[in-house]
Amino acid sequence: MSELSSLSRRRFLQSAGVAAAAVALAPHARGQDTSQKKIGYAIVGLGRFGAGQLLRSLPECKLARPAALVSGSPDKAKQLAQKYGIKESSIYNYENFDRVADNADVDVVYVVLPNSMHHEYTIRAAKAGKHVFCEKPMANTVKECEEMIAACKAANKKLAIGYRLRYEPTHMRAIEIVQKQEFGRPRVIESVHAFNIGPNEWRTDKKLAGGGPVMDLGIYCINACRYLSGEEPVQVNAITYQPKDDPRFTTTEAQMVFNMKFPSGLLAYCSTSYAHHGANRFHMMAERAEIVMNPAFSYGGLKLTVRGGGGDKGGPIETPQINQFCAEMDHLAECIRDNKDPRTPGEEGLRDMKVIEKLYESAQSGKTVEVA
Amino acid sequence: MSELSSLSRRRFLQSAGVAAAAVALAPHARGQDTSQKKIGYAIVGLGRFGAGQLLRSLPECKLARPAALVSGSPDKAKQLAQKYGIKESSIYNYENFDRVADNADVDVVYVVLPNSMHHEYTIRAAKAGKHVFCEKPMANTVKECEEMIAACKAANKKLAIGYRLRYEPTHMRAIEIVQKQEFGRPRVIESVHAFNIGPNEWRTDKKLAGGGPVMDLGIYCINACRYLSGEEPVQVNAITYQPKDDPRFTTTEAQMVFNMKFPSGLLAYCSTSYAHHGANRFHMMAERAEIVMNPAFSYGGLKLTVRGGGGDKGGPIETPQINQFCAEMDHLAECIRDNKDPRTPGEEGLRDMKVIEKLYESAQSGKTVEVA
Repeated sequence: MSELSSLSRRRFLQSAGVAAAAVALAPHARGQDTSQKKIGYAIVGLGRFGAGQLLRSLPECKLARPAALVSGSPDKAKQLAQKYGIKESSIYNYENFDRVADNADVDVVYVVLPNSMHHEYTIRAAKAGKHVFCEKPMANTVKECEEMIAACKAANKKLAIGYRLRYEPTHMRAIEIVQKQEFGRPRVIESVHAFNIGPNEWRTDKKLAGGGPVMDLGIYCINACRYLSGEEPVQVNAITYQPKDDPRFTTTEAQMVFNMKFPSGLLAYCSTSYAHHGANRFHMMAERAEIVMNPAFSYGGLKLTVRGGGGDKGGPIETPQINQFCAEMDHLAECIRDNKDPRTPGEEGLRDMKVIEKLYESAQSGKTVEVA
Repeated sequence: MSELSSLSRRRFLQSAGVAAAAVALAPHARGQDTSQKKIGYAIVGLGRFGAGQLLRSLPECKLARPAALVSGSPDKAKQLAQKYGIKESSIYNYENFDRVADNADVDVVYVVLPNSMHHEYTIRAAKAGKHVFCEKPMANTVKECEEMIAACKAANKKLAIGYRLRYEPTHMRAIEIVQKQEFGRPRVIESVHAFNIGPNEWRTDKKLAGGGPVMDLGIYCINACRYLSGEEPVQVNAITYQPKDDPRFTTTEAQMVFNMKFPSGLLAYCSTSYAHHGANRFHMMAERAEIVMNPAFSYGGLKLTVRGGGGDKGGPIETPQINQFCAEMDHLAECIRDNKDPRTPGEEGLRDMKVIEKLYESAQSGKTVEVA
């Protein structure tokens, strides 16, 4: 807890959810309506996702703004800092990252590193007195997830996991249709998320990625089955395939198919692969219709359709297209502002990781496995 | 073999594949080109499928014709016999069915009874000296399938199983695309076949049906995975669900999800259900494209599409729409005429039944099961 002592009064009050009237006393907030003050994000990891999606989106956000960068490439970081109006003093590298504790401009640290580094950087960020947004998969193991949750709790900081689709209107409408049983009880859900991965990607290095495509892609299928149904799987099984002749897959499987059973009797059958043409979708088969989203997991252009349903109830369902990254970052900003719990907290990442560990257990043991 | 002694010389010569010149000596063939003579089918079981599809189609066939009816409803049989130009003396019931041995007008017995009766009627037909077309699933157990194959072999009669889609141009084109690897290696296949079943159907009575939806519907998914890939599964697993509050499912599961692994590393994930909105399709995901058929298992209107593939190679693929029942019945007629082996012999039904038995073994044991 020693890191907390370095927090400014403003930061403490804000993170503790003290009323805006009190926060308005902080020098930083002078001359503006503090209820509208944007939450500062530090982006840790400036790769395709961190720079190309999150940082690029921040200027469009309503409640979030770019505040700091953490990178191993100083030139890249400097260039991006200039582009996004970030002070040079708010550029960190992986060694001096902990100094972010002294940066009152930073409210949230967004961890966009290889999976194996999520655990370390989430805990370091929490110890630096920052809220944490961590990409999915939350970590490489259930144990790591639990430690991350504990660290953020101990620091009295919020922890959100990057399940961007939980803030996306097409998915929110699909959840509503399924859970209100607009077309009867949900019975079976199919979901796939796959693409052809290039050579030399960290995502195919088990040490860095924690596993194969289920960590990065299949997790969308698992999460979708869970949030669409509102249920937790009780039983899973899986079969994997690791080719012997493909240099991309020397440490992980190339693909996995798996089944899940839910308490209501809902069954799921899913697939994830790094070795075939891109596919990302779900089919929720209910008593009187199929609710189909295809694509379902892309950054935009999601299409929701009801097949069947009787009369004029079928057909495409229009939903607003939004910036998914702003939606999730604005959500955590709002939670910080209003001291609410995020919709996708650490516990949500932990639940998926528990399922993934059981899928690997099943693939390795050749047994259908109970999920506690 | 005693039933064989009652065969006419013509029938013996024909079934033994003797040259048309010899067959032309038979009195029955006088005054017509025997190479064009149609093969007479007896339809055993005049339900929705036997009467509504097979019998209805026979007048349209090129090489097959309606020759006899076997039914427990004399009035229905008489009415249908009149409609289809079948002699009243060629109407049988389940007791006197074996007299078909004396009916030279009948070349093939097509067994369209509940699954549990396939074994008995196939063997009785073979003993009556008739070729057999038997609906899928071939029987309730592997053991029954083996006995049926042995009986037809002992009687020197052909045995074909009703896999109508193996004679259908859309499926034949899909097989070609996949096996020629027009879009690279096949990696993962998804398939579902399901619908909402009505109350009091024999197909939900385990004694009659041998199991749940996998017997009647899931078998299409299994068969499609096998014929598209040209491979046999080596590993399978399954999870089933039998609701406690649905009177349709007192003796069988309502649905099953299952995975299969093939020697090349191809993985399959499939679902079959009697408890949700109709769905029948497959997605064969290959390296450079998805080959999609939706619907895939209907009696007509099948739609084949390539998603991806690069350049102008994607999009819908046109194939001729045909009468699937004529295609299969004409095929066996041609095999009889030319003494060839049918494309979907008893061994094909046996292979699917072996997979189905392993799926049930997996669902019951909670283990991934090797398929010999």
